[in-house]
Amino acid sequence: MIKINDNFCELPASYLFSDVAKRINAFKAEHPDVEIIKMGIGDVTQPICPAAIQAMENAVADQADRVTFHGYGPEQGYDFLRRRIVDVDYRSRNIDIDIDEIFISDGAKSDTGNIGDILSTDCKVAVTDPVYPVYVDTNVMAGRAGHLVDGRWSRIEYLPCTAENGFIPSLPKDNPDVIYLCYPNNPTGTTLNRSQLEKWVEYAKDNNALILFDSAYEAYITEPDIPHSIYEIPGAKEVAIEFRSFSKTAGFTGLRCGYTVVPKELKGLSKNGDEVSLNALWNRRQCTKFNGASYIVQRAAEALYSTKGRHQVKETIAYYMRNASLLRNGLSAAGLEVWGGVNAPYIWVKTPGGLSSWEFFDLLLEKCGIAGTPGVGFGPSGEGYFRLTAFGRYEDTVAAVERLSSLKLNK
Amino acid sequence: MIKINDNFCELPASYLFSDVAKRINAFKAEHPDVEIIKMGIGDVTQPICPAAIQAMENAVADQADRVTFHGYGPEQGYDFLRRRIVDVDYRSRNIDIDIDEIFISDGAKSDTGNIGDILSTDCKVAVTDPVYPVYVDTNVMAGRAGHLVDGRWSRIEYLPCTAENGFIPSLPKDNPDVIYLCYPNNPTGTTLNRSQLEKWVEYAKDNNALILFDSAYEAYITEPDIPHSIYEIPGAKEVAIEFRSFSKTAGFTGLRCGYTVVPKELKGLSKNGDEVSLNALWNRRQCTKFNGASYIVQRAAEALYSTKGRHQVKETIAYYMRNASLLRNGLSAAGLEVWGGVNAPYIWVKTPGGLSSWEFFDLLLEKCGIAGTPGVGFGPSGEGYFRLTAFGRYEDTVAAVERLSSLKLNK
Repeated sequence: MIKINDNFCELPASYLFSDVAKRINAFKAEHPDVEIIKMGIGDVTQPICPAAIQAMENAVADQADRVTFHGYGPEQGYDFLRRRIVDVDYRSRNIDIDIDEIFISDGAKSDTGNIGDILSTDCKVAVTDPVYPVYVDTNVMAGRAGHLVDGRWSRIEYLPCTAENGFIPSLPKDNPDVIYLCYPNNPTGTTLNRSQLEKWVEYAKDNNALILFDSAYEAYITEPDIPHSIYEIPGAKEVAIEFRSFSKTAGFTGLRCGYTVVPKELKGLSKNGDEVSLNALWNRRQCTKFNGASYIVQRAAEALYSTKGRHQVKETIAYYMRNASLLRNGLSAAGLEVWGGVNAPYIWVKTPGGLSSWEFFDLLLEKCGIAGTPGVGFGPSGEGYFRLTAFGRYEDTVAAVERLSSLKLNK
Repeated sequence: MIKINDNFCELPASYLFSDVAKRINAFKAEHPDVEIIKMGIGDVTQPICPAAIQAMENAVADQADRVTFHGYGPEQGYDFLRRRIVDVDYRSRNIDIDIDEIFISDGAKSDTGNIGDILSTDCKVAVTDPVYPVYVDTNVMAGRAGHLVDGRWSRIEYLPCTAENGFIPSLPKDNPDVIYLCYPNNPTGTTLNRSQLEKWVEYAKDNNALILFDSAYEAYITEPDIPHSIYEIPGAKEVAIEFRSFSKTAGFTGLRCGYTVVPKELKGLSKNGDEVSLNALWNRRQCTKFNGASYIVQRAAEALYSTKGRHQVKETIAYYMRNASLLRNGLSAAGLEVWGGVNAPYIWVKTPGGLSSWEFFDLLLEKCGIAGTPGVGFGPSGEGYFRLTAFGRYEDTVAAVERLSSLKLNK
């Protein structure tokens, strides 16, 4: 038999969202009459906006005619989309990004998962804690994580984000090479303001670290002092790769499109001591292991940047943020302590009365028929917390808040 | 600066198809009046069939309505598509494949590139030569290839396929763990018949090797004794992963959809000596680093299995195979020795008069305005050969054959 990648054996067999699904199914079997409101997985519920639908209709028609038919596209994505990204997402914020620093993909999960391909397996990794599990699990698969000991990977530095530090992670102590930052944050819904993010860029410069900045939720920012892109911070192009997604911005979770920015200023070191462009490495990786995102979906993404598209995207985001506000208020009124929901579609709840994340999961499911995500599923510092998403339908969110009001809590 | 994946530094800077594009552009600049017929990159030219277009129109409409909206799909693909694959591509050939052995993806390039994630970097690799460059380059990136010495990677076993052995590779001698086989073959257009493929399955069983079987071109098979799937060979489920693509079957190069079959019988060995299911590993890999193929494209793929869809797919394949036949005859009439084009859309040509692959590339471009692909770009045993594709338009193929007839060859 052939030898497998043994790092996979380090991964625990279970997975957060499948565990959640199992408990929900068990509850359903026992309580077939209860209509469960699902506020767990961060999936959207509103349809694709008309501008993107129209663009897809046109793109489908293109594929039906041999004159307008599009076969293989560029692995890096079509220029029609990359140009809009450069202009609207960056240059309009006075950020100078070139078109060949933009790599279109089938989503930020793929990119944040695959980016490790271009980095040494020796690199030391730091993550904020709690954290999106993909960052950790993909490093386990690559052999960078070490062993799981008491819920922590031995070679990963955890940077706790809890109520005690106002969800502002301390700078690393173990001199990591790679630091994952996700702001607005999944799962806590919290943000870093400009001066807080500046410290990270400065730290990365001073310590030769690479920041992998996931800004999949930037479209949800409402406050002025919160950077939408890490490149708003001077010097960030020398230290950061940025991941973006249309999944949450425009409901593309089922369409699949995102992009990654790898500035040409970014350099890595080969073992011969040569400086190597990370942009060139990622380009090579994508050209070799990826064949471009679907033409139809790239046309849909392009349409989001039209005047109509931008307006429609804003409307849908406002819809979800109304949910977020409702949820925040409802949870507070029920006597719970909450964060997030102001610049992000996630609400992070402190479990009451010292309940564990899973105990609160069960309580909320049993008393209110609401399914969320136990905070501990996102990392050890998530214990004692709970995530709810604002991506539900408005009427379900209203119903959830009503059910929460009946919750008798022993604080 | 952070340490990069040094294996990338082993890769030569240039890439076959970009080199080809450069020479074409240089020729164009010097001969602006010549209409170049491009028969190099294996991209399709015919539009998507009406059944798939209709399915995409419906799927786009689904995404416009919150009741029919589809968000995140299963990472493994939708059951509506996996079921059709199981029934039509396998059970109808008396192959027993389960639905959870099918993994839908954004294409066979991604899957053949990413499959290495689940295998040990110690695995020894064998490839037929010439070969689809992705197999080799992704193993270079993973550190399995060693160093490039005189056009050959030091840790890869090359199995030459040339006119001398009738393009039938010998069984390996260096006891590889992983063997890439692509049949019908890209680039040579040749095939293995049932008894020839049986020897490979037997070899893999006897030698604990894993066969990575790429059958992206199976829809082009016209002869009865050529297996469409390696699983037509008894016992293959214990030794082979199969890759399929809708790119060439139905012109999905721009839509992006393929699938990979990982049978549950397939086991690998962990360093503790435990048997590990490759199906479980690939499932974990896909769930962690991939978020499913686009809903719209999966609906298009589903439609290919309808009665109408199957008929339309066959028509387009017949269109390309008419090109293949024309090209074969035209090249033969011009005095060239050719293979392929009977069960595959590729024609493999012996360069005349001892010309190198690149010399013949230049000759064909200059004398006939035809751009193909130099065989040496696919590996050292491709030297002295040349690939032409039948994916062009019929009228261009006719024009190409006419130009070929004026070619004065010194055999």
